[in-house]
Amino acid sequence: MQTAILLFDRFTSLDAVGPYELLGRLPGAETVFVAEETGPVRGDQGSIAIVADRTIAEVPRPDIILVPGGPGSRRAMENPAILEWLRAADAGSTWTTSVCTGSLVLAAAGLLTGRRATSHWLTLKELPALGAEPTGERVVFDGKYVTAAGVSAGIDMALHLLGRIGGDELAQTVQLLTEYDPQPPYDAGSPEKAPAGVVAGLRDVKVE
Amino acid sequence: MQTAILLFDRFTSLDAVGPYELLGRLPGAETVFVAEETGPVRGDQGSIAIVADRTIAEVPRPDIILVPGGPGSRRAMENPAILEWLRAADAGSTWTTSVCTGSLVLAAAGLLTGRRATSHWLTLKELPALGAEPTGERVVFDGKYVTAAGVSAGIDMALHLLGRIGGDELAQTVQLLTEYDPQPPYDAGSPEKAPAGVVAGLRDVKVE
Repeated sequence: MQTAILLFDRFTSLDAVGPYELLGRLPGAETVFVAEETGPVRGDQGSIAIVADRTIAEVPRPDIILVPGGPGSRRAMENPAILEWLRAADAGSTWTTSVCTGSLVLAAAGLLTGRRATSHWLTLKELPALGAEPTGERVVFDGKYVTAAGVSAGIDMALHLLGRIGGDELAQTVQLLTEYDPQPPYDAGSPEKAPAGVVAGLRDVKVE
Repeated sequence: MQTAILLFDRFTSLDAVGPYELLGRLPGAETVFVAEETGPVRGDQGSIAIVADRTIAEVPRPDIILVPGGPGSRRAMENPAILEWLRAADAGSTWTTSVCTGSLVLAAAGLLTGRRATSHWLTLKELPALGAEPTGERVVFDGKYVTAAGVSAGIDMALHLLGRIGGDELAQTVQLLTEYDPQPPYDAGSPEKAPAGVVAGLRDVKVE
């Protein structure tokens, strides 16, 4: 089993690394970071660069495709090489997945047409114009298409996938190994829970 | 304000990237990934490499030091260049922090002597021999020394730190932006909660 994690300039690093850390522990699986060209790819805050070890052309038939989000997803949505790779790879994939605004890239490739999907809460409203049906769930399964909400939701998605692929005991083992027993000191992780002023402050931000 | 995230061969990627994603959003802060030498540093599962943009020698006085864990922490604990850098940088830091077995590296540098600290649940028992007092908490503050439990606990630690440094509203804004509203499909993230068989399976593993 091969998992391909797509990188593009200005991706959000936790979107990619959260699922990587968990899914990468699937016994016998190979994970590969891919991009249009090999070499370091810079994340959205500029301080991080993760190395793409292979080009997308070199990884034509991954079993699992994972597309992170980030400001750079806007350009990815308009990049024919990325969209064509996604369509071709999806034709042979077992799971086609995204985190955050990565769902906009999948949708731009035509892969979420008529499907239930999610995205970062600030960009959910963009899904209908791209053919998908937005839902407020944190992780959405529609057949083999799995989309997660913003950034950290990719960790929850990875646990769901591990359970589906390797069974509950494997997923629980990875949860315990990564000590994923969340205890955030605030309860502000969704617009329904965060203080109104915090939500309003982010609504005014142009989220790319 | 400058945050230095230490990389070493076979670090655990989420230990570094979880806190990076949140702490990096501190307004006006610069985050830099450092290692003994610049260039790509491979994580513990082998498929990821994050670029160290600067050597530790080039970043002598960070305000925040963050040491991730991972199998490679064993060699880091015995690496004089890393230990000397940690001691010198700590002399000027505002916060000295770790995730997972990163606390063993801080302790090996003599920085946790007599202090309360945590680590991955499988390595907590190693802290006393290194001079620290283990606790079962997920995030432990002892003065400027902040240690987080295994892997994903670094995200909670980052939220705590954001609150202390920038205030509750900033921390809540970052929590909402990263949509950190955890909904794991299992409740197996600590040895107290996971099924006994899952805990036993990991206890038998040699955790480096």
